[in-house]
Amino acid sequence: MLRTHNCGELRLTHINTSVTICGWVQRTRDIGHLIFADIRDKYGITQITAIEGTSKPEIQEQLRKLGRETVVKIIGKVSERSSKNPNIPTGDIEILVEEIEILNTSKVPPFLIEDETDGGDELRMEYRYLDLRRNPVRKNIELRHQMNRATRQFLDDLGFIDIETPVLIKSTPEGARDFVVPSRMNQGEFYALPQSPQTFKQILMVAGFDRYYQIVKCFRDEDLRADRQPEFTQIDCEMSFITQEDILNTFEGLIRHLFSQVKKYELPEVPRMTYDDAMRFYGSDKPDTRFEMKFVELNELTKGKSFLVFEEAELIVGICATNCASYTRKQIDELTDFIKRPQIGAKGLVYVRCELDGTFKSSVDKFYSSEDLQKIATKMNAKAGDLLLILSGESHKVRKQLSELRLEMGNKLGLRDKNKFAALWVLDFPLLEYSEEDNRFYAMHHPFTAPKPEDEILLQDEKRWGDIRANAYDMVINGTEVGGGSIRIYQRPLQEKMLGILGFSPEEAKAQFGFLMEAFEFGAPPHGGIAFGFDRLCSIFGGADSIRDFIAFPKNNSGRDMMIKSPSPIAQAQLDELSLNITKK
Amino acid sequence: MLRTHNCGELRLTHINTSVTICGWVQRTRDIGHLIFADIRDKYGITQITAIEGTSKPEIQEQLRKLGRETVVKIIGKVSERSSKNPNIPTGDIEILVEEIEILNTSKVPPFLIEDETDGGDELRMEYRYLDLRRNPVRKNIELRHQMNRATRQFLDDLGFIDIETPVLIKSTPEGARDFVVPSRMNQGEFYALPQSPQTFKQILMVAGFDRYYQIVKCFRDEDLRADRQPEFTQIDCEMSFITQEDILNTFEGLIRHLFSQVKKYELPEVPRMTYDDAMRFYGSDKPDTRFEMKFVELNELTKGKSFLVFEEAELIVGICATNCASYTRKQIDELTDFIKRPQIGAKGLVYVRCELDGTFKSSVDKFYSSEDLQKIATKMNAKAGDLLLILSGESHKVRKQLSELRLEMGNKLGLRDKNKFAALWVLDFPLLEYSEEDNRFYAMHHPFTAPKPEDEILLQDEKRWGDIRANAYDMVINGTEVGGGSIRIYQRPLQEKMLGILGFSPEEAKAQFGFLMEAFEFGAPPHGGIAFGFDRLCSIFGGADSIRDFIAFPKNNSGRDMMIKSPSPIAQAQLDELSLNITKK
Repeated sequence: MLRTHNCGELRLTHINTSVTICGWVQRTRDIGHLIFADIRDKYGITQITAIEGTSKPEIQEQLRKLGRETVVKIIGKVSERSSKNPNIPTGDIEILVEEIEILNTSKVPPFLIEDETDGGDELRMEYRYLDLRRNPVRKNIELRHQMNRATRQFLDDLGFIDIETPVLIKSTPEGARDFVVPSRMNQGEFYALPQSPQTFKQILMVAGFDRYYQIVKCFRDEDLRADRQPEFTQIDCEMSFITQEDILNTFEGLIRHLFSQVKKYELPEVPRMTYDDAMRFYGSDKPDTRFEMKFVELNELTKGKSFLVFEEAELIVGICATNCASYTRKQIDELTDFIKRPQIGAKGLVYVRCELDGTFKSSVDKFYSSEDLQKIATKMNAKAGDLLLILSGESHKVRKQLSELRLEMGNKLGLRDKNKFAALWVLDFPLLEYSEEDNRFYAMHHPFTAPKPEDEILLQDEKRWGDIRANAYDMVINGTEVGGGSIRIYQRPLQEKMLGILGFSPEEAKAQFGFLMEAFEFGAPPHGGIAFGFDRLCSIFGGADSIRDFIAFPKNNSGRDMMIKSPSPIAQAQLDELSLNITKK
Repeated sequence: MLRTHNCGELRLTHINTSVTICGWVQRTRDIGHLIFADIRDKYGITQITAIEGTSKPEIQEQLRKLGRETVVKIIGKVSERSSKNPNIPTGDIEILVEEIEILNTSKVPPFLIEDETDGGDELRMEYRYLDLRRNPVRKNIELRHQMNRATRQFLDDLGFIDIETPVLIKSTPEGARDFVVPSRMNQGEFYALPQSPQTFKQILMVAGFDRYYQIVKCFRDEDLRADRQPEFTQIDCEMSFITQEDILNTFEGLIRHLFSQVKKYELPEVPRMTYDDAMRFYGSDKPDTRFEMKFVELNELTKGKSFLVFEEAELIVGICATNCASYTRKQIDELTDFIKRPQIGAKGLVYVRCELDGTFKSSVDKFYSSEDLQKIATKMNAKAGDLLLILSGESHKVRKQLSELRLEMGNKLGLRDKNKFAALWVLDFPLLEYSEEDNRFYAMHHPFTAPKPEDEILLQDEKRWGDIRANAYDMVINGTEVGGGSIRIYQRPLQEKMLGILGFSPEEAKAQFGFLMEAFEFGAPPHGGIAFGFDRLCSIFGGADSIRDFIAFPKNNSGRDMMIKSPSPIAQAQLDELSLNITKK
């Protein structure tokens, strides 16, 4: 090694040791008779010093001239600092420089390499290698490594084995859009990049591998909304001879292990909630359970009072915002504006202030007596000082709207602390979801999910398809779906039936998934699994909203890598070899 | 779990325990009053038994009817076998069946699910899930997992961190052909799949990550020779602030750790050899050093004796095959035929038998006296009973030919035992390799490899380019290159010079590698690394010639996945979205 020590390890015990360190110049300070520089590497920062009268004059001169981010090798003796820095682990010592070797120079970086930088997103993406030098970004990538390592440790110990599935697979029309890869050797034919290793992991169960996992890249050619990446990483798992309960226990174990190992946080037992309850109480299949503020349905107490809006509504439902009775008209107007935004689309907001003096003040005083409001307040468990926020309309829509309002109130009340963690299992998802638009059913999870055995009978009655529950489950942390899975179909007739319901002709079913259905005929064991979104999981552990800074080289919202300038045109010769033409530009 | 125990764990200590196992029916035996079945899962085989008069008659009937590969759940009591099977860990016990549940049926498999199968390659690829049930194949995949785990353990402990680099990158014309991925959002533009994360790992060093690794899929759209896969896996590593010596020591440590952990074999210190010596003594830059049989150059002793073939040859070189003097004329003719095959292309073979009585018998007796042959034998360290095999011709070609002959003799003499391991570092590779065909230099390793500092001066003299040695190294095990790497260029001017030598115009260099050269200007540390071919490494540890059975889902020689039938045509709508047309079919 060019160094004897890294920049994070020298302590008082090293005093008088001759050492060599290598790293980047973070900053220099020249106070006349003393010249300091902070030398940085991944492991820390070490102060180096030249003292007038003690150090060689040329050393002082060299030190003075060191530009930021210059790469240096420093030889010197460890010395106790007269003025210690308790904020860094090496703060007790400095190195009295005897020799400086400049290993590489640096131009002036286009933004500050500091915890708080002045670089904009695009610039940081273009000079990603400089952004990655910044502590917060570097720590995210290190956190990701720790998460990876702790995941493997947990699964390895349970006898899961890591099996690589192929990246060049086959395009399937179901679900999101595939990235495709033209085959040169098979002209006119294409591979596809996997959206998940779903069918392969099931095949591995048929092959008898019993417990599989993989931390694996997946790909989706979707229009990129903020914080979606065309390539992303999953912790992908599958088990045989299990029930749903086994999966829940095993992977609750994984998540608790990760919190314990990586965050030193002992996550309590993960509560479970049915999909129906999640929708009823939170208006969302991924409720943020760091705070309560459950929905209370008010149809009984609000109907029949001549308030036309409520009379016409399918559902009247509210939340109680603790200690918010003092909200001003302006604040309430802001909430109204919030829910009226087109993305949310509510028509209006009814509020009831539970004043500290026991009276009520509401936007519907004309229709509801004090007693009426008292009843509502009682039903909503409101105390004096609370604010009731009530929406109404079509059940499905109003729940979504109130869910947004609930989250907004959570934000306003500081109930969504990034350093607090609430995990939740959401269970019993519907198997099928009807699309009014396409006039057909889609698989809510995917076409391989098994219906609950007790609901399987409903498959025979098209009118009941929407009522069929699946053995499917999501893990939600802090209101984000971090993982989901299901018990799988493992018998050909049921799989054929399911693909039929999803609109596959028998020929299409065979062309796309024939290999899987055939595999089911050669002794497929009962099996099920789960996949966690690894980028997202890391960002939640890191307390960040964006997944981008947990990915070493993310792409921007147009799917471009700003650093390497990709995608890019290719040579005509390459196109010719692939028998392809670009039809327009 | 559907089971209380797996099929590999029951022992005498479990006698009288009520257990439930799940698995596949391996075979049944009906000997009248006793009916046996072997139930198999990943963990082992357990015998289940029904006894006439003891078991319920319907159980016997069920057991009798069980077809191979049926998936069953068996409830019963563990009992000591009267006739034990010492060959399997569960051989002391059997389960007296109380209940059988058929979890899934199986058609008759198209080939035997036994260690030795009757299935051909194509059939085994098509029904890969059945092939993977076979012990030898399953064990390869398990070995791969162990290798993966032990690699991570070693590198994690040394402070390497696993960082995922992107799969959708940019096409570069240098080197092998890229797989490309059309971008829908950036019409007419393409991503490429990485042939290696080379530039990204260097960027990570510039970013200060100090020690990086990744076990990562890479892609090459090459014409597939036997045992090459379009997607393959590398153990990819890079370190900063190091010398070549540090890399060699670190990764020799990795390989020894793998042998120790996975094979329980203590690999001795790995010898080192320069590229020049490897070529001189073995005619190969990846010599199989499980056996000696070094080349001995004989120009001095053979020239000037009127044997025209030798007179005209640039190099006369031989090997000594111990105890092969007894080879018959026919055997020697076979060797001659072997080296005359077009793939090898030698003109002829000269032999000298060192007879047990101290005389010599050779194919060139006419030209060489007994004393001449004695001198040759002495130089070649031959003993009575040995056979000398001598080739001649152009140095470069004759070395390659003799290398093939040496390996063939190694095979014949049983010196290439798959359970014996000999590792070797080959060092000091040439930086550049001249292609007569293209009339230009190519990078022997890749364009980012640094010349040896002492040879850097030769860059100024085009005539000396071929003499420049690189700080590049390969690890060879049993005659196979399992890994290779180099110290990298980390300064822009040298990188520009190198790309210029390789025929890049400044514009091309900037378009392809501008980001890397720019990164070098912002304080790039000295760095270097290595990559191991993980599939190949696994196959060597598994004692197999083919990498295919160490890959769960390999592709065939046409790049096809026979199981999922990929690649395949895609819909016109997909092509339209990508603005692509197929020009011919």
